[in-house]
Amino acid sequence: MEKVVRFMHKFLGNDSEFKDKELEMYKLALTHSSNNSPFNHNQRLAFIGDSVLRLIIREHLYNKYPNWTKGQLSDTAKGTDKTIGIEQNKKYAKIAIKLNVLEYMDIQNQSFESDSTITNAETFEALFGAVYLTRGLEEARQLAEKYVLNK
Amino acid sequence: MEKVVRFMHKFLGNDSEFKDKELEMYKLALTHSSNNSPFNHNQRLAFIGDSVLRLIIREHLYNKYPNWTKGQLSDTAKGTDKTIGIEQNKKYAKIAIKLNVLEYMDIQNQSFESDSTITNAETFEALFGAVYLTRGLEEARQLAEKYVLNK
Repeated sequence: MEKVVRFMHKFLGNDSEFKDKELEMYKLALTHSSNNSPFNHNQRLAFIGDSVLRLIIREHLYNKYPNWTKGQLSDTAKGTDKTIGIEQNKKYAKIAIKLNVLEYMDIQNQSFESDSTITNAETFEALFGAVYLTRGLEEARQLAEKYVLNK
Repeated sequence: MEKVVRFMHKFLGNDSEFKDKELEMYKLALTHSSNNSPFNHNQRLAFIGDSVLRLIIREHLYNKYPNWTKGQLSDTAKGTDKTIGIEQNKKYAKIAIKLNVLEYMDIQNQSFESDSTITNAETFEALFGAVYLTRGLEEARQLAEKYVLNK
């Protein structure tokens, strides 16, 4: 768990103490899908994190561009929709690589490249899922502002 | 504004008093896109509401099915993604029609059918955008539990 704590302090930008339940969640976010059963890795959390990030990004665009139509907002947000494009995945992966997240992860199958876009992007989403579920939307928003929205 | 207040009381299931700023937002949610400038109707709010509903539905599935993989969760949530299917739109429209929402709306161009899936679904999403922006995620979640998740 020490690696998990170190990463989360770096990611959150402070040295919070964590409850056991929180730590379990962060450990899960940092567990690669090559591990264990499908319920013991970060993909379910990425499912949540994806929609957390989407809401935060949309609200940001909505507030930032009061004179944009829905069409203009959607075009700009499109990158956040993985069914349309992979641009947002690349962006998330880039941030995760910069955070060196794979160094802190529990990965059984090391056969993939450490700059793998999918692994890094999914872990980034999973971290947002974990932060949202343990610390709420506002803390997830603050982190998104720091890492994604460049506020 | 009296029509707006009446609808919101019905929608929220209580007779809250609203601040002017809230009322403006609800009026916008109930203004059809045939009206005025692109910033004076409900489509921008639908852009927010879509992602609010998506997050709430995903979190609901995540909690309800702790043994489902991301793939199983995604397959079930797919209906919520308008780029993949229109099932969710139909569901939202059905609820909005049941609420008789068009009767309460400000619609300049009456040429479309009152059971129009798109108009009803978009208004339903816009209402969730408005509730989220004025009353927060938890109140939006309670309404989604009542109308969408059948809790």
